[in-house]
Amino acid sequence: MPPIHESTVQLANFDNKSWDRGRSRLIEFAWLFLSSLFISSSIPGSLHRKLILQAFGAEIGRGVVIKPRTQIKFPWRLSIGAHSWIGEGVWIDNLAQVEIGSNACISQDAYLCTGSHDWSSRTFDLIVKPIVVGDAAWVAARATVGPGVTIGEGAVLGLGATASRDLQPWKVYFGNPAVASKLRTLRG
Amino acid sequence: MPPIHESTVQLANFDNKSWDRGRSRLIEFAWLFLSSLFISSSIPGSLHRKLILQAFGAEIGRGVVIKPRTQIKFPWRLSIGAHSWIGEGVWIDNLAQVEIGSNACISQDAYLCTGSHDWSSRTFDLIVKPIVVGDAAWVAARATVGPGVTIGEGAVLGLGATASRDLQPWKVYFGNPAVASKLRTLRG
Amino acid sequence: MPPIHESTVQLANFDNKSWDRGRSRLIEFAWLFLSSLFISSSIPGSLHRKLILQAFGAEIGRGVVIKPRTQIKFPWRLSIGAHSWIGEGVWIDNLAQVEIGSNACISQDAYLCTGSHDWSSRTFDLIVKPIVVGDAAWVAARATVGPGVTIGEGAVLGLGATASRDLQPWKVYFGNPAVASKLRTLRG
Repeated sequence: MPPIHESTVQLANFDNKSWDRGRSRLIEFAWLFLSSLFISSSIPGSLHRKLILQAFGAEIGRGVVIKPRTQIKFPWRLSIGAHSWIGEGVWIDNLAQVEIGSNACISQDAYLCTGSHDWSSRTFDLIVKPIVVGDAAWVAARATVGPGVTIGEGAVLGLGATASRDLQPWKVYFGNPAVASKLRTLRG
Repeated sequence: MPPIHESTVQLANFDNKSWDRGRSRLIEFAWLFLSSLFISSSIPGSLHRKLILQAFGAEIGRGVVIKPRTQIKFPWRLSIGAHSWIGEGVWIDNLAQVEIGSNACISQDAYLCTGSHDWSSRTFDLIVKPIVVGDAAWVAARATVGPGVTIGEGAVLGLGATASRDLQPWKVYFGNPAVASKLRTLRG
Repeated sequence: MPPIHESTVQLANFDNKSWDRGRSRLIEFAWLFLSSLFISSSIPGSLHRKLILQAFGAEIGRGVVIKPRTQIKFPWRLSIGAHSWIGEGVWIDNLAQVEIGSNACISQDAYLCTGSHDWSSRTFDLIVKPIVVGDAAWVAARATVGPGVTIGEGAVLGLGATASRDLQPWKVYFGNPAVASKLRTLRG
């Protein structure tokens, strides 16, 4: 039998250095500080949240609403199209780019996760993959979206559902794992 | 092809005005302020939570326990029967009435969601529906309850389960979506 | 029909006294206070978290990483092996012992729940059961682990999954309820 330090996962050998965080540690620290005071706090209002996010590199369209208690990892890896909503307590864990279209709704307590690990690697290598949320899509309350997932235009991920694969446009998904249950059609 | 502003969802046209919030914005702001300091904070103790909730219109029975870090949207749309428990980190998102019976337990990190949207509407109209939790029911930790759901008397929604439909009395449900797995019977 | 106080669950008769919390209320209060300031806050850094947890009785191995916003119920019922990681927002609700092995990863927003209730009992008796997370196991982001569960060595509980039963070593589970989907093998 090989010695245990060779035979299994060794998190001590995890490479957390060669990964590009996109900004200096100083800027990241400034973001953390302002974020905990003004973004993830209970203070109501979208405007100051949008201005701070933009100051740190986020692209945010006209009419976007960002509710209290939102957690955003790296504002410089976030774009939100016009008239989209980010609900209360949403966590955008954007190690990789998160691109949210226009007229999209990310409801309260939803979680967008861009990070994973290579579980076949003995050093548990970090994997980051972008998330795309299409125009007019709806990630409902307490839903979870995994790394690399594209939520198609107009798709709906239902209350508390978990999506680890792409969602087709204009379809409605429920459950964990999320399964398509019906088409979404617009009236009139 | 019609111009895009007619062909798809337009959140800019969402109607957030005609909806009745139940109290003035001033009272809502006062509630937000006190809530963030005394209800959703880590300070232990039920008594001050109950007094503040009652001052803002909640009906709360004898012997109710309300743990720290609870989030309640509108106390004026909340009633809790005698000897029921609201666990740590529970989020009661009661745009519509939430009625919790007696001897009911809502465990830690559970989420009660009364709001939804009409996804067939180009203006993504708000839909709010009440939630009823029956006497002696148990919404277990990290479970999620959707708009309009009635949790029957004595029903159990298991750890992390999600209920978007009514739960039958004295049945036990697990999973997402929640499915009935057995009857609940009382000994003796 | 018997009087209602005999016929159903009576939370007023719940026994919260004979249960052993492991430390005096004074120590528990000191822990709560320090925890809310330094452990569950947004302040970055592992070192001060580990020192405080150890001061209150936690066993923590070399190289352990503990991220911000973690909630730990009783540090005196926690052991974490060398080089394991506790992610941001993880909630270790350890009424009973939680034993995490070496090189294990508990990712962000995961929830470890050791408490339950006997739903056949008219007094809703508390049930607490330990959780064991094996070496090299991975509880992924927003996953939930129930009372009494053993996560086998090297097992993976996927994004948002809920485990109420033991996980076999070196298998990968997804969904709610969690089901085994594949084997985990290490390269090389």
